Amino acid sequence: MSLSMYSAFIPVAIHTLNNLAAILAKGAAHCEARKIDPNAFLTARIYPDMFPLIRQVQIASDTVKGGAARLAGIDMPKYEDNETTFAELQARLDKTVAFLKTIQPAQIDGKEDADIVLSFPSRTFEFKGQAYLTGWVLPNLYFHTTTAYNLLRHGGVEIGKADFLGGA
Amino acid sequence: MSLSMYSAFIPVAIHTLNNLAAILAKGAAHCEARKIDPNAFLTARIYPDMFPLIRQVQIASDTVKGGAARLAGIDMPKYEDNETTFAELQARLDKTVAFLKTIQPAQIDGKEDADIVLSFPSRTFEFKGQAYLTGWVLPNLYFHTTTAYNLLRHGGVEIGKADFLGGA
Repeated sequence: MSLSMYSAFIPVAIHTLNNLAAILAKGAAHCEARKIDPNAFLTARIYPDMFPLIRQVQIASDTVKGGAARLAGIDMPKYEDNETTFAELQARLDKTVAFLKTIQPAQIDGKEDADIVLSFPSRTFEFKGQAYLTGWVLPNLYFHTTTAYNLLRHGGVEIGKADFLGGA
Repeated sequence: MSLSMYSAFIPVAIHTLNNLAAILAKGAAHCEARKIDPNAFLTARIYPDMFPLIRQVQIASDTVKGGAARLAGIDMPKYEDNETTFAELQARLDKTVAFLKTIQPAQIDGKEDADIVLSFPSRTFEFKGQAYLTGWVLPNLYFHTTTAYNLLRHGGVEIGKADFLGGA
């Protein structure tokens, strides 16, 4: 089977978010076992003007739900960004995975040259589908999942590369 | 043009390593301007049993040179892993990019089902080409480049997501 826009994206994103949910579960268990306030992790930042763990997880989710919806040309699910616990973050990832599972290969495949427009308050980005996937969606997904991993790892949660890669 | 094993990998890896080299240059300039010992960054770790910055950069390089060589079925360039300065790390990335530029699309395209074997002292991994690219090479590349970014960002180097994405 040939690599395609769908196969390079949707199964990979599902796998990555499931790995992140499992990593968060280890974070929650770590807090529980050591009587650590989970907020110490949930609000942790690599640097004061970086986003805290909660937002890193939300953005990982947003990146792939936005990516899937834009490439498929369908409406994006809207989430309220109101998670405040490990369990709520895991539920958000589960919800995102459930959305990704509704996407069919035919909705994404062949979208290499689709026009994709991302509008932010301060800037608009225009991409073709392939550049959007390989230069925006995937790097952002891994950036935010790695940063979430690093925040937990920095605080002593016993996770390793195998958790990040998910049993590769 | 359709997404292919080459286009999902080699131009993406070149872009990512060039971004990392530019990020390291900002780290070096930060040290120079503030009279900070560069070793404070080069030996920094997210957690004591994680690899330091130097090794994160070396592994990002190794991941893609190994990925390209294995998928192309050619010999892997051997590097000595003896970098001790920002400049030497940038040179290693430049050398890796130069190697990637020698790879032709025909050497990588169509390798979705190629048998790939990774042998480590403690374990052997067997993949098909596509799973190797999407489940090992790319996540590892982004894991180590993000961790290098986070180590510099944690120490106050003025970099942002645009440096990581490289002007997307």
